[in-house]
This record gives sequence, structure tokens and C-alpha cells, in this order.
Amino acid sequence: MSSYFTRGSDHTAFAGAKFTKADLAQGAHLFAGLNCFEPGQSQAVHAHEGVDKFYLVLEGKARMRVGAEEMDAEAGTLVWAPAGVPHGVVEALERSVMLVGMSR
Amino acid sequence: MSSYFTRGSDHTAFAGAKFTKADLAQGAHLFAGLNCFEPGQSQAVHAHEGVDKFYLVLEGKARMRVGAEEMDAEAGTLVWAPAGVPHGVVEALERSVMLVGMSR
Repeated sequence: MSSYFTRGSDHTAFAGAKFTKADLAQGAHLFAGLNCFEPGQSQAVHAHEGVDKFYLVLEGKARMRVGAEEMDAEAGTLVWAPAGVPHGVVEALERSVMLVGMSR
Repeated sequence: MSSYFTRGSDHTAFAGAKFTKADLAQGAHLFAGLNCFEPGQSQAVHAHEGVDKFYLVLEGKARMRVGAEEMDAEAGTLVWAPAGVPHGVVEALERSVMLVGMSR
């Protein structure tokens, strides 16, 4: 198995109790992972000090919040959460898959 | 216009001469952008010291190289290029769009 090439679809998983997280890759400076939500699931608004983060919605639609802004983000939307700015998933409106990139 | 929410499709652009790059977001620690390739276009193999990077192929198919490995990467493939490891796009096999995440 290659350590450089990964199919995202091999790492999607959904659970009834809570959204799931999967690590795709990580190094000294950067992390890449997937967050998978069933409709109605959420991620509490939180912030990372000193860490920038983005989500790219790959499938589905979710109500996302960053700072004081909310958007119903569909596939193809990049959601940017700069270091220290509170962000989260208010509610997945459909079954949703998001790529997450974070500095480390 | 929101500074937190961006549609990737608003930033795709193709050019006959060379693959194109677009910035989607950047902070003190992280960068997100798009690379768009016409079939046959390439990105020379290169390395970033102290910077981790990934590509996520969003559309199309491209022959990607990281270190000594090559793969014809289709939509949904994450390509991980750790700091210092040479990487590039040997040849886009189809019109291709890639999300790029890089530490800063």
C-alpha cells in the first residue's frame, strides 16, 4: 500500500450516534482527514488556537458556522476557519462528507 | 461577500499555455487553492522544504508522482507530499481540477 496515495472513499464511514472522523494523512506541519455526517448530526462550535483549518464539502449539504456567519454549504464549498475563530457544523442537512485540512 | 465561504467552482479556470492556480484561502499557517489542468498539461516535479502538501483530485484524472511512486489519480484520490519529498503532476490524462492544501 502506498503511503502517498489514498482514496477518500475507502475512509468514509457513518455512525448513528455521532459524526465520524478519519485520518487520511498527517505530517509535521499538516493534517488531512474526513468528517462524515448523517442528516441531523452536528459538530459543536469550537476553535483552535494557532491552527488554521478548512473544510471542503465533498458530498451532501450542511449548515456550517464560522465566526458570526452561517451558510448552508453544498458540495464544492470551501469553508475557511482561521486560527482562533469559532467554527462548527450546526446541522448536516443531508448525509455529508467533508475533507478537512488543518495546520499542525 | 463572505471571507469564510467560497465555492470552488467560482475559481476554476483553464488555459491552453499552462495549468492554472487559484488561491481559495490563506492564513498564517495554512493555504488552500485550486490547480486546473487541461489534458496533457503537467506540473514539474518539485519539493517544498518544511512544508507539507496534499492534492485532492476533484475532477478528472492525472498521472501524479510523489517520491518514487506514480499513480493515475482519479477524482477522490488524496495525494500526500510530505515536506521535502519531490512531487508533481506528470501529465493530466483528462481535464482535471485539484484542491491543494499546504502548510505555511
